[in-house]
Amino acid sequence: MNQANKNSTIKVGVIGAGGRMGRMLIEAVQDNPQTTLSAAIERQGSSLIGADAGEVAAIGRLHVSIVDDLVAVIDDIDVLIDFSLPDATEQNMQTCAEHQVAMVIGTTGFNEQQEQVLSEASKHIAIVYAGNYSTGVNLSLKLLNMAAKAFGNTADVEIIEAHHKHKIDAPSGTAYMMAEAVAEARGQDLAEVAVYGREGQTGAREAGTIGIHAVRGGEIVGDHTVMFITDGEMIEITHRARARMTFAAGAVRAATWVISQNKGQYNMQDVLGISE
Amino acid sequence: MNQANKNSTIKVGVIGAGGRMGRMLIEAVQDNPQTTLSAAIERQGSSLIGADAGEVAAIGRLHVSIVDDLVAVIDDIDVLIDFSLPDATEQNMQTCAEHQVAMVIGTTGFNEQQEQVLSEASKHIAIVYAGNYSTGVNLSLKLLNMAAKAFGNTADVEIIEAHHKHKIDAPSGTAYMMAEAVAEARGQDLAEVAVYGREGQTGAREAGTIGIHAVRGGEIVGDHTVMFITDGEMIEITHRARARMTFAAGAVRAATWVISQNKGQYNMQDVLGISE
Amino acid sequence: MNQANKNSTIKVGVIGAGGRMGRMLIEAVQDNPQTTLSAAIERQGSSLIGADAGEVAAIGRLHVSIVDDLVAVIDDIDVLIDFSLPDATEQNMQTCAEHQVAMVIGTTGFNEQQEQVLSEASKHIAIVYAGNYSTGVNLSLKLLNMAAKAFGNTADVEIIEAHHKHKIDAPSGTAYMMAEAVAEARGQDLAEVAVYGREGQTGAREAGTIGIHAVRGGEIVGDHTVMFITDGEMIEITHRARARMTFAAGAVRAATWVISQNKGQYNMQDVLGISE
Amino acid sequence: MNQANKNSTIKVGVIGAGGRMGRMLIEAVQDNPQTTLSAAIERQGSSLIGADAGEVAAIGRLHVSIVDDLVAVIDDIDVLIDFSLPDATEQNMQTCAEHQVAMVIGTTGFNEQQEQVLSEASKHIAIVYAGNYSTGVNLSLKLLNMAAKAFGNTADVEIIEAHHKHKIDAPSGTAYMMAEAVAEARGQDLAEVAVYGREGQTGAREAGTIGIHAVRGGEIVGDHTVMFITDGEMIEITHRARARMTFAAGAVRAATWVISQNKGQYNMQDVLGISE
Repeated sequence: MNQANKNSTIKVGVIGAGGRMGRMLIEAVQDNPQTTLSAAIERQGSSLIGADAGEVAAIGRLHVSIVDDLVAVIDDIDVLIDFSLPDATEQNMQTCAEHQVAMVIGTTGFNEQQEQVLSEASKHIAIVYAGNYSTGVNLSLKLLNMAAKAFGNTADVEIIEAHHKHKIDAPSGTAYMMAEAVAEARGQDLAEVAVYGREGQTGAREAGTIGIHAVRGGEIVGDHTVMFITDGEMIEITHRARARMTFAAGAVRAATWVISQNKGQYNMQDVLGISE
Repeated sequence: MNQANKNSTIKVGVIGAGGRMGRMLIEAVQDNPQTTLSAAIERQGSSLIGADAGEVAAIGRLHVSIVDDLVAVIDDIDVLIDFSLPDATEQNMQTCAEHQVAMVIGTTGFNEQQEQVLSEASKHIAIVYAGNYSTGVNLSLKLLNMAAKAFGNTADVEIIEAHHKHKIDAPSGTAYMMAEAVAEARGQDLAEVAVYGREGQTGAREAGTIGIHAVRGGEIVGDHTVMFITDGEMIEITHRARARMTFAAGAVRAATWVISQNKGQYNMQDVLGISE
Repeated sequence: MNQANKNSTIKVGVIGAGGRMGRMLIEAVQDNPQTTLSAAIERQGSSLIGADAGEVAAIGRLHVSIVDDLVAVIDDIDVLIDFSLPDATEQNMQTCAEHQVAMVIGTTGFNEQQEQVLSEASKHIAIVYAGNYSTGVNLSLKLLNMAAKAFGNTADVEIIEAHHKHKIDAPSGTAYMMAEAVAEARGQDLAEVAVYGREGQTGAREAGTIGIHAVRGGEIVGDHTVMFITDGEMIEITHRARARMTFAAGAVRAATWVISQNKGQYNMQDVLGISE
Repeated sequence: MNQANKNSTIKVGVIGAGGRMGRMLIEAVQDNPQTTLSAAIERQGSSLIGADAGEVAAIGRLHVSIVDDLVAVIDDIDVLIDFSLPDATEQNMQTCAEHQVAMVIGTTGFNEQQEQVLSEASKHIAIVYAGNYSTGVNLSLKLLNMAAKAFGNTADVEIIEAHHKHKIDAPSGTAYMMAEAVAEARGQDLAEVAVYGREGQTGAREAGTIGIHAVRGGEIVGDHTVMFITDGEMIEITHRARARMTFAAGAVRAATWVISQNKGQYNMQDVLGISE
């Protein structure tokens, strides 16, 4: 898309433009026909200040120089995407609230005070705040909630996740979120019903339990399957992640949505139109 | 479950007790802890009139004789399940409306007048009327609708169904229902976007199309998979039917639900609590 | 197939004709166009002696009465199929060896002396002796052996099996056989490399291990998937059993094969032509 | 691995070092603990002549300069890997034959004369020549051959392949190779038994046919599933490609194997030890 066609698009600023996630966000902004990169910010002292954001992201010159001061470029920004660190994001929320700029936040690990700043800022601007911006994962959680309610206690639930051989813990965080979605819909406490692995004289399956199995091998990015098994039929809901780029694309999709919302705090299910 | 425990359960009558579906319904009624068979009806002239309904269904004596007149046993019935023929069901709807007996109807092929009788009867009694009583299929349609909306035009949709080698048409009716659920959610006309099979120089995939593939082999009861494929991730929703019994069990589940509803017409998504 | 067409087919005798497996064997014999039931034997004192074997198996009258003495009918038999108990089979092997009648044996639990009788009998007649007569399972073991050798230590192997909720032990015997096939091909001791379930801070996957996961739910007859996962690709070999009838059909297939073999002992991989 | 440890490894030369495949081959050579890059060749006139091969491949300096003359570096090479064009490979085969250097060739499109040169060269040196160096694809073909023979005419075969939305033809070449492997093992002519897509009143499945279905969507690298479906069970063999790197790794594996072979021509199934 040439620059002329981009004139009517949403102007997006990206925090942490030189980091791994920042570079993917820049690429995703340029890939989305509704958005264009208008500002790229890095921390003071970075050697990348002044470099072209597109060249840093290896997608070609965009004529947007990386700067170290959000305030200096805030007037060029419709939506700010911030996947950085709590302290930096805290300050950015205050700046955006002041300048009436919407935000998409993927930063994790807020302390209580930072949660407070988020809450305060969302009284002035529209903010999407989510731990996971994948459309597929957020949708899966909603589908699982619905399936668990529809089957009630007529289905046995089993979860299989698969990740690369380097992963050092199990099950995955996403598998836990999925198991929680099922347990919650059935009014259960996950800790009481989760079963990890079966070996030996296990006895018959106890009704209401949730089996969780962690496959490890090769360079698998991340697959999750949840099975609802009744005596006569079965539903499987499977999510496969192919590339981390999908999280950046989800954040940009949130940016195109948040621009037309009233002030307030939203999550990714709101963006996808699947919140209750 | 002994007869004493069954005293507080829902009394169910079954139409067509000697037919294949009728026998499965009788078994499903006895399998469900909330229901008990209280009446079994066959058409006049059947050689099974007077036989024990349980023995006909090969599940042991139930002390319920098959009769040929619904009116004669209507007072013993809380809910009537009717998977028979339009003319018979038309008459049964009038009898039930008159005697205030709820119904679960799986009969297909109503003409306009019979639809009218259904509509009139549902002003007096609660009726569940559905073309497919499988929990899994009904749930799948709802999940597909939700997934199609959440992904919008960012996902390519492909459907794979698999049935036994004796099936003489393709794709399956359920595959069409699933494709319709996706097309409708995306505001498309299925006839315009469906693609059946690809061979030769097809060119790149056209955005918005829905690929539908029919696998045939062995004695597969019925599997359906719908894939939502984006550039970075994928969601698959799979339904596997293992036994036809699941449709009978779904009808009995509808019977346990309809008993406590106000008069009106309902479908299986209402029963499952997943209608909008 | 009418009786006339059956005249040139292989005449099969079935031991334990009144038992669950015996009935399935009788049905499988009649289903196979190359075989016909010529004799049906039950233990002395059974109330089924004298009954028609086809009617007992619920497939219609076959004009073959169940008898309690193998010797009395041995001249009508080309191949005897015996899925009964070690003591009975021991005697049957001696009778068949004496009368030059080939055998297909599915009896398990032979003691040393009975193994000796088997070995001796196979010097006089052709005997197929196997623990599992499923074509698919036997083929799977061969495919796994081959895949394990081809991938060597470049692939991570994970096994997922799924069975009905009533199963009281885990993993399944077939899953162990599959794991053994992989371990053996790689020169490993399964006990040292098997991993059952992963939870918590597991650390990175240890090279050479075999993960084995047991899913339980509904009425699943028996599914097994073995994954070979390298950094850049993956092969999955999946076996799904749909009906126990498949084991009876495999035994009848063995009967059609053993009839033209020289004396000796064979297994199901010999029948399938996939032994090394 | 440091350079000292690499001293005893196999010295590999790579043709087309500046191309996309060449760069992957260089990375794969350095990833394999048994091999080290000793020479990198590009066509005359390339701007990359003189550059460090490792830096061109973005894996860091290897102290191997790209040269434009194979003869000048042939004494440093144990095995030459050549995925280039027919004319260049023709000349390289002659050079290698003369200098007794083994080869791994992935070049496609040889004319008759070039096939002749290959045949002649393999009288002097060991050459692996294959159209596809993926371990998984080559293994799959062998497994399919074996499964098709074991099931004979008792199984219905269906193939599902899935590729990215940009692919302009269908089915994939690999799907054809798999279908051929099945047809050949059953003594069939693929053109007579292949069925592409099913729609409308198809009639019951014709015995012996092979259904081939092409799924298209997103950025799927390449998945293939072959199903063998009998009345009572099913085997599925699935191959998933995750990264093109797997082809380069397979070629390097071939290099480690060919070094200890007698002169002659070999294919990838020979390398994997699964040829008949």
